[in-house]
Amino acid sequence: MNQEQTTHPPAPVGILGFGGLGKAAALVLAPKREMSWVAVADHQGYAYDPAGLDALQCGALARAQGSVGYLNPGGVLTDQGIESLLGLGNRVEGYFLALPNLPNTFMATIVQRIIAAGWRGVLVDALKRTSAMEQLFDLAPQLQQAGITYVTGCGATPGLLTAAAVLGAQSYAQVHQVDITFGVGIANWEAYKATIREDIAHLPGYTVERAMAMSEAEVSELLDRTQGRLCLEGMEHADDLILELAGICPRDQVRVGGIVDTRSAAKPISTHVKVTGRTFEGKISTHTFTLGDETSMAANVCGPAFGYLKTGLGLHRQGIYGLFTCADLMPQFVR
Amino acid sequence: MNQEQTTHPPAPVGILGFGGLGKAAALVLAPKREMSWVAVADHQGYAYDPAGLDALQCGALARAQGSVGYLNPGGVLTDQGIESLLGLGNRVEGYFLALPNLPNTFMATIVQRIIAAGWRGVLVDALKRTSAMEQLFDLAPQLQQAGITYVTGCGATPGLLTAAAVLGAQSYAQVHQVDITFGVGIANWEAYKATIREDIAHLPGYTVERAMAMSEAEVSELLDRTQGRLCLEGMEHADDLILELAGICPRDQVRVGGIVDTRSAAKPISTHVKVTGRTFEGKISTHTFTLGDETSMAANVCGPAFGYLKTGLGLHRQGIYGLFTCADLMPQFVR
Repeated sequence: MNQEQTTHPPAPVGILGFGGLGKAAALVLAPKREMSWVAVADHQGYAYDPAGLDALQCGALARAQGSVGYLNPGGVLTDQGIESLLGLGNRVEGYFLALPNLPNTFMATIVQRIIAAGWRGVLVDALKRTSAMEQLFDLAPQLQQAGITYVTGCGATPGLLTAAAVLGAQSYAQVHQVDITFGVGIANWEAYKATIREDIAHLPGYTVERAMAMSEAEVSELLDRTQGRLCLEGMEHADDLILELAGICPRDQVRVGGIVDTRSAAKPISTHVKVTGRTFEGKISTHTFTLGDETSMAANVCGPAFGYLKTGLGLHRQGIYGLFTCADLMPQFVR
Repeated sequence: MNQEQTTHPPAPVGILGFGGLGKAAALVLAPKREMSWVAVADHQGYAYDPAGLDALQCGALARAQGSVGYLNPGGVLTDQGIESLLGLGNRVEGYFLALPNLPNTFMATIVQRIIAAGWRGVLVDALKRTSAMEQLFDLAPQLQQAGITYVTGCGATPGLLTAAAVLGAQSYAQVHQVDITFGVGIANWEAYKATIREDIAHLPGYTVERAMAMSEAEVSELLDRTQGRLCLEGMEHADDLILELAGICPRDQVRVGGIVDTRSAAKPISTHVKVTGRTFEGKISTHTFTLGDETSMAANVCGPAFGYLKTGLGLHRQGIYGLFTCADLMPQFVR
C-alpha cells in the first residue's frame, strides 16, 4: 500500500554527531513538516527538546562553545550523550548517524552500543568504507532481533549515486562497469575536518591510522602542497559491496574516485555515475547520472539520508526490521 | 533482512500480451536464472510449459501464425487465455502485463478480471496514461484484499526515468520541475503497432478514439507525411501522477515529451530526465539522468519491469499486498 496515503504527525528524529555534516543535516531538516528535529549529540554532550531544536542556534552554539550540551534549556554536558538520548526511547523514532567514519571500527562500535541500550527505531548512516560496512553486516542479525531498521550507505556515494546505478543497471542483461566520480568543493577544510581526514586516508601512501594521527598543522601543510586539492582514485568505497550484494556486478567492477577542492565552494568536476553494460540485444551502452554543480556535498548527502530515514520509518511501523542498503529501498521525499 | 541473502528456485513468471513488447520481454527473460518464463497469453490463445517456454520459438510462431496458442504441445487457442492461465494459480507467481494501453480502460478491465478470478501473485505493468493509472488506484483496496502485489508504471517512462527523478529529488528542499524527454527509434512501425497507435493518440488534433479507429493504411499515410517521425509534447503521462503521489512536486510541474522515429533503430534524441530544484542552501540546480543511445525502448521498458517484478515477488512472499508505483520501490536486478 502506498505509504503516502497515510498521514502521520511529524516524526521526532535526531542527529548523532554534530560536525559539518550534522550541522548541515539540521539545516536540511529545519523546513520539513514531516520530521521534527528534537535530539542531537556530539562528543561532549547532547540536547533534547520535544518541541524541536533550532538548527541555527545549535550550530552557532557548537561553533562558539564546542558542544550542543551548552544549550539552555535542553542541553546536558556528558560523555554519555548517545546513551542519554537512547534512554528517551521512542520519543526519538529515528537517527541520522552523522558520525566520523574513523577509526574504521567507530560506526560498528556505536551501533553495538545502540543495540545494547535496547532502543528500537530507525537508523541511517552515510558510511563510506567497504570494511566499515562489512562490520555492520556482521551485526545484521542483532539489528533485526533488536527491532531496529537500519539503512546503511545513505549519503551521496554510497547512497544517491549507488541507487542511481541500481536503476541504470535495469536496462542491461549484464553490467560491465559502474564508475562513480565525485567533485566536492568546500570553502574551507575546517568546516569538514573529519571528512577531509577521511579523504586523506585514501591518498596513495596514507592509511586510516596515518590520517588520524596527523595534527591539524600537518593537514594544512598537506593541503598547501596540493593547492588545496585532494585527487582520489580507486577508493575503498562501499558502493562496491552494496552493488555486489544487490547482484548488479562483482565488486571489482565498481570504481570510485573524485576530486575534493578545499579552497572553493565550486565543484572541481561534476559528480556523476556511469553504468556500462550489455543489453539483451547485445548492444554495449552507458547510462550517465550527473548531479547539478550547484548542489553541495551537504545537500547530496543529507537529503538522501533523510529520504531513506522516511522509508525506514514506514518499514519500522510495519514491523520490518534488519539491515538494508541504499540499493534495497527507494528513498521517499521528505516534505 | 537483505532479500539477496535468501536464494529461491527460479520464479515461474508469465507475460500477458505478446505484441512487440511481450516478444521483447520473453527475450529479456531468456538468459535469467532467477525467473523462468512459463506462461504467455495473446488475444487468440495461450501457452504454458512448467519447464519453460522458448522465446524465439514462441516469437516466430506468433509472427507466422498469429498466436502462441498454436504451440504444440503447450498451446491452446481460446479467447479466455488469461482466465485459463489464472486457473493455474501459483504455478505462475507473477505476470508482466505487456498489454495494449488502448482503449484507456483496457488495463483496469483486465485487472478486474484478474481480481475476479481469485488469483494471488504479483503484477507489473508499463502503463503510460495518467487517466488509465487513476483507474488502477480506484482498484487499490481490492488488489490488497485479493492478495495481489501490483506495481504500476514499471517501464521506461513511467518507470526507470520516474524513479530516477525520485532519486534526483533527494538533493533538493523543493522540486521545481521534472522534464522527461525520450527518443525512440524502431526499424519499422509494424513491430510495435499498439505502441505507435498509442503515441499517435498524443498528437495535437488526435484522441485515443481517433487513433484507435485508424486503419493501418491511415497510420502508414500519417507516418509518410511526417517522414516516419512522431514529435510529442506535453503528453498525458502518468509520471505526473506518480511523482505527485510520492510528494515530489505537483503534477503540473512534470513534463513528458519525445520523438519517435519509426524508420530507424537509432534514437533521434537521447532519452533523459532532468530534475530541477532548490537546495536547502537556496541554490537552484538541475540533475540529469541520460540513457545510453544504444539501449532500445525494449531494453529500457522490459528490464525495469522484471526488476520491479522481482521486488514485488519479495514483498508478496512477506505478505505485503496492494498497489505500488515505480516511485515506492527500488527495482532489484534479475540475474
